[in-house]
Amino acid sequence: SNEFVLTFSCPQRPGIVHSLTGALVEHDGDIIELKQFDDPRANHYFLRLHFSVADASVAGADGPLRAELAQLAESYGAAWSLTAHGAPQRVLIMVSKFGHCLNDLLYRARVGELPVEIGAVVSNHPDHRGLVEWHGIPFFHVPVTPATKPDAEAKLLELVDRFDIDLVILARYMQILSDELTTALTGRAINIHHSFLPSFKGAKPYHQAYDRGVKTVGATAHYVNDELDEGPIIAQQVLQVDHTYGPEDLVAVGRDTECKALANAVKWHCERRVFLSGNRTVVLT
Amino acid sequence: SNEFVLTFSCPQRPGIVHSLTGALVEHDGDIIELKQFDDPRANHYFLRLHFSVADASVAGADGPLRAELAQLAESYGAAWSLTAHGAPQRVLIMVSKFGHCLNDLLYRARVGELPVEIGAVVSNHPDHRGLVEWHGIPFFHVPVTPATKPDAEAKLLELVDRFDIDLVILARYMQILSDELTTALTGRAINIHHSFLPSFKGAKPYHQAYDRGVKTVGATAHYVNDELDEGPIIAQQVLQVDHTYGPEDLVAVGRDTECKALANAVKWHCERRVFLSGNRTVVLT
Amino acid sequence: SNEFVLTFSCPQRPGIVHSLTGALVEHDGDIIELKQFDDPRANHYFLRLHFSVADASVAGADGPLRAELAQLAESYGAAWSLTAHGAPQRVLIMVSKFGHCLNDLLYRARVGELPVEIGAVVSNHPDHRGLVEWHGIPFFHVPVTPATKPDAEAKLLELVDRFDIDLVILARYMQILSDELTTALTGRAINIHHSFLPSFKGAKPYHQAYDRGVKTVGATAHYVNDELDEGPIIAQQVLQVDHTYGPEDLVAVGRDTECKALANAVKWHCERRVFLSGNRTVVLT
Amino acid sequence: SNEFVLTFSCPQRPGIVHSLTGALVEHDGDIIELKQFDDPRANHYFLRLHFSVADASVAGADGPLRAELAQLAESYGAAWSLTAHGAPQRVLIMVSKFGHCLNDLLYRARVGELPVEIGAVVSNHPDHRGLVEWHGIPFFHVPVTPATKPDAEAKLLELVDRFDIDLVILARYMQILSDELTTALTGRAINIHHSFLPSFKGAKPYHQAYDRGVKTVGATAHYVNDELDEGPIIAQQVLQVDHTYGPEDLVAVGRDTECKALANAVKWHCERRVFLSGNRTVVLT
Repeated sequence: SNEFVLTFSCPQRPGIVHSLTGALVEHDGDIIELKQFDDPRANHYFLRLHFSVADASVAGADGPLRAELAQLAESYGAAWSLTAHGAPQRVLIMVSKFGHCLNDLLYRARVGELPVEIGAVVSNHPDHRGLVEWHGIPFFHVPVTPATKPDAEAKLLELVDRFDIDLVILARYMQILSDELTTALTGRAINIHHSFLPSFKGAKPYHQAYDRGVKTVGATAHYVNDELDEGPIIAQQVLQVDHTYGPEDLVAVGRDTECKALANAVKWHCERRVFLSGNRTVVLT
Repeated sequence: SNEFVLTFSCPQRPGIVHSLTGALVEHDGDIIELKQFDDPRANHYFLRLHFSVADASVAGADGPLRAELAQLAESYGAAWSLTAHGAPQRVLIMVSKFGHCLNDLLYRARVGELPVEIGAVVSNHPDHRGLVEWHGIPFFHVPVTPATKPDAEAKLLELVDRFDIDLVILARYMQILSDELTTALTGRAINIHHSFLPSFKGAKPYHQAYDRGVKTVGATAHYVNDELDEGPIIAQQVLQVDHTYGPEDLVAVGRDTECKALANAVKWHCERRVFLSGNRTVVLT
Repeated sequence: SNEFVLTFSCPQRPGIVHSLTGALVEHDGDIIELKQFDDPRANHYFLRLHFSVADASVAGADGPLRAELAQLAESYGAAWSLTAHGAPQRVLIMVSKFGHCLNDLLYRARVGELPVEIGAVVSNHPDHRGLVEWHGIPFFHVPVTPATKPDAEAKLLELVDRFDIDLVILARYMQILSDELTTALTGRAINIHHSFLPSFKGAKPYHQAYDRGVKTVGATAHYVNDELDEGPIIAQQVLQVDHTYGPEDLVAVGRDTECKALANAVKWHCERRVFLSGNRTVVLT
Repeated sequence: SNEFVLTFSCPQRPGIVHSLTGALVEHDGDIIELKQFDDPRANHYFLRLHFSVADASVAGADGPLRAELAQLAESYGAAWSLTAHGAPQRVLIMVSKFGHCLNDLLYRARVGELPVEIGAVVSNHPDHRGLVEWHGIPFFHVPVTPATKPDAEAKLLELVDRFDIDLVILARYMQILSDELTTALTGRAINIHHSFLPSFKGAKPYHQAYDRGVKTVGATAHYVNDELDEGPIIAQQVLQVDHTYGPEDLVAVGRDTECKALANAVKWHCERRVFLSGNRTVVLT
């Protein structure tokens, strides 16, 4: 393919778009989609540019367009990436007993709705082996006890390495990760929290929601960081409920919001639409 | 009119509906709408019954139907009420500088969407006098300083009394009420909180939402009690937002959710659809 | 189990609830959930009553409670049913190439979210055999051509009979059913239409939505009748979209609305919450 | 102010953004918000660019930046505009008996949520004179009968001219406009239709929705053109309903969707975010 995606973020300064599109024009590039956000509070600039070129090699490893963009990135002090459009990211899914998000991701990946290749599924329970293997994906049962946790996390990192994983998805994985692991995975691990954060942190959010009598429940997909449930939020979904919903009914309706929030977050991340900005995200959809 | 609304709530026990409908049948009553909720966790029963009778006097002050229902209420240990259907409740609206909820309530009352008579509007600022008086409603400017707060609250209670008020609506009234006042108004004061509770209690919830980068904002209408922002929730409304919304944009979109959540709560309360159940509400819509 | 569900619908008349709850009281029944709707326009009454009895046999085949309810039904001219609560309905799913609704229903049935037993899956394409058989459910490939259509429909009815099917679910089955078949399945076949009906009837609704530039798309689950896309609506789901969505993007986001609308309709039907009322439905959730 | 908004739309061609941002850079411009859409189906390009300049005169009537943009527009065959950011548009509101949209627009304009100056309100009924004049806005009662319709429309155009009106808002104005008038107002008249178009065209859409038993109702704001209810859609809002809603209940809940859809459409139009593209709109929010 001769389509590429450029991401570029740097401190605000006049002339950035003009410089970047200048490099494109010079190499016969044509813009397909350009999204940008000038954050007036962070004084920072974020851009995602999807473009085509007549000759794909200009954007290749040693291509002149890539070289020129690298130079611009240096002069603007930018974080940047240039990748083939549509290139799937390799993901590893972690799951415990609740399999709805896993099943949802497997299906969406299968029909081409998500630009991912699922390299492996890891679980601290054996329950979902059958489904995962039916999809032709390797399944690893890695039990976790307080004593084996360091080994289990080492095993996970080994799998991340072995399967060349870009993104780890915690699809209702019910173990708390160590600080070492969250640090190692910074910016490349997405969790789905089964509540509308920051409302109901911690365990049993649906029971908390019931006790408080809320009329709306939701789910939050966020990057993992070393503060539990405090990582930058990528996507949220909510549903209206009423007094007839007991805690277990809230759990049931919550499943749909969890599936959708997580699928959105994974899609946007893998399409390179999500930028970190302090404890917030910029999502250029 | 020969239509009435019965509310009835008591500990669960078999036979309640049968007894109540028996009293109706005996007096030629006909059910128009019956809503009930058997709460399995609170072990409590809640009923709202809208019915007509051939002869309205049976449900009047000394009517035999009313007497029979009173007897049933006593035998079941029930809280109950029997009122003419559609009879407006008398409300007093309190407001500070932000007038969107006030304007919304004035309009809905005017077109008959809410079963209320607005007896008076009280504000700690003079700004909204013109609009309120244009609607033909008395307006009272009651400034509040730390020193005058007891007097101001006494004045409020005097107005509640003078205008025969059933319900006080805090429509973005930005003063914290004393415990004495919240106690005096228990179950007959509704507040609109400009956030999705319990997420962002206290001041400046939209700024908190911005800092946390949430993708959804909302508003919560709740009964006032002596714990700030902790009263039983009646209605919530939410909206999706994104990274482009600064704090003041969140304030702006929040206005629509505040208006709608508060209007719903007032409507349901005044139609006698809301029951307290511990720190939760049962809303029989 | 000693829990049962009574459904009862008949022309409006005073005293119905009292009579029915009288039968319950007499046989030591206890109400768990009672929902009713007095339709003032159709002048018709609809009730769903979930209750428990001390002795399940009173509601059994020859039980006295059942006999009494039968008598009441006759005197009121009511359509009625009395079934064990939670008893799964036997369903047959029909599908063509698009498998998202099939996958969704298989998953929800598997985790116990739907009170169904999936007896068989029938498709005019072989594609989904693997997934269906992995779930341990018989799969039948029944190709349809203009010439073989009568045979294919006969085969379907034979399967409905052989697997003792209560409900046929058309989960994106892309063949138009004959009038004979729709008549044979009246009230026991649910279709998911991939648009917000009645907006975009017929083929390619997402392309129609694109051409019209709508900002909202949706899906409609309805009972099948002999007028294409005109059966009584049970559930609808909508999503906001914008100008960036091409027809194929609308198809993609539409999938989530289709899954959810169909799952809701199936759940409510199988819980016996859906009543037909002319070309409308009453859904007692 | 030294902030401006450029809108620019033309057939797709490489280099457009680069050229436009080049003109900015040359005149010390700084981008505040840039939104663009490359429509692959229409092969057309749409841009809205909010920027600041050090010296406002470069974008003034004879300023060099304006001259350069004019030249670029000519070379690209573009429709374009360059206006001061935040400059209010002058609007005229037309209304009949239902005043909810009028009241909503008056309030939003008053608190600065809409960048408009309401020049006048015209109605075929006298009912809303009091409210409008309380807001300090001229009110014109222009009755319409079949015989007087041409005169009434001439009067309207005279008012549009006299008050220097940019946009006519039909806020539940219940008269059908003549082809001459719709032609005269092409692209500068927005109507609110009280249904989810294209579902329920014509009169009494809520009654149609009731008869069809839909579970979702909505409202549609669209540009007026000479085909009734067929103009390009700008905004839609929907709400879930159920079987208990009679036609008049649908009317009541519909009011909120009408207010919000119309307010959004007016806001986006007046911020110059809406572009026509055939029978569709591109809305660069």
